[in-house]
Amino acid sequence: MQEPIYSFTKTAMMEKKYMDLAIELSIANIHNGGGPFGAVIVKEGEIIAASANSVVPSNDPTAHAEINAIRDACRKLGTHDLSGCDLYASCEPCPMCLGAIYWARISRLYYANTKDDAGNIGFDDSFIYSEFALPYQERKLPTIRMINTKAIEAFQIWEKKEDKTKY
Amino acid sequence: MQEPIYSFTKTAMMEKKYMDLAIELSIANIHNGGGPFGAVIVKEGEIIAASANSVVPSNDPTAHAEINAIRDACRKLGTHDLSGCDLYASCEPCPMCLGAIYWARISRLYYANTKDDAGNIGFDDSFIYSEFALPYQERKLPTIRMINTKAIEAFQIWEKKEDKTKY
Repeated sequence: MQEPIYSFTKTAMMEKKYMDLAIELSIANIHNGGGPFGAVIVKEGEIIAASANSVVPSNDPTAHAEINAIRDACRKLGTHDLSGCDLYASCEPCPMCLGAIYWARISRLYYANTKDDAGNIGFDDSFIYSEFALPYQERKLPTIRMINTKAIEAFQIWEKKEDKTKY
Repeated sequence: MQEPIYSFTKTAMMEKKYMDLAIELSIANIHNGGGPFGAVIVKEGEIIAASANSVVPSNDPTAHAEINAIRDACRKLGTHDLSGCDLYASCEPCPMCLGAIYWARISRLYYANTKDDAGNIGFDDSFIYSEFALPYQERKLPTIRMINTKAIEAFQIWEKKEDKTKY
């Protein structure tokens, strides 16, 4: 009965290897002018994408490590569906990235630093999470619901369309 | 004392115009193979970006209307900071897009359809919001916290770096 123990150890070693790579990227990225975040996407033991944060150098507030890795993996695999892929993030994903992880159908999420660690060095992760927990009327972001009957027509047309690709 | 009333009416008319455009994009997009979502970004009365969802045609699960509009507006304005910009979304932003709206420093958010409307036609918005409200151990997405002391070193290096660009 050595096999299960061996498999477990091997899996744990590989998990550590992928996380170590995400962390290495997070450190190297600081010296490249980006934020201290890295992410790695793995499918069936193969590294599909390994990215760092590039918000400042690319003028793109959505260019977090996890989003960059998801977009890169989707380009490489030619699909918007990353079922069967695991994502290793050097830090707990912010709400934007966690949302993207769900939409991409990532199978498993691994992370090291926490959102509070990120908050402690000046990033807004904890603040944004706390905003999500409030009704929109109480958020710092002024939010206005506009009732517009035309808007729901778009959803009705979508619902009736037969040859659509769901995601 | 007519001026304030006139200004109010004019503002309301412009808000409706921008929202109507977001909704038109959401309807046109269905016929283009995308999801029924549109978003418009406006700065000081000028439309900076007007985008629709392109998840399926671009094989990019992050290509929601709001993210596309934010990325386009940032490209056009040459910055990752959209302070002073308002965003009009034909539907309440999902967690990914709401997170992006915070990171981009959007000043005001307007939306028409709700996340429950989106849920009713088969989109995961409500599901993902409900996942956010749970501790990670109870989520459908298997999530593993890996304690790794090297990870926090990245944050310490970031904190000590003097010539960094915060965002």
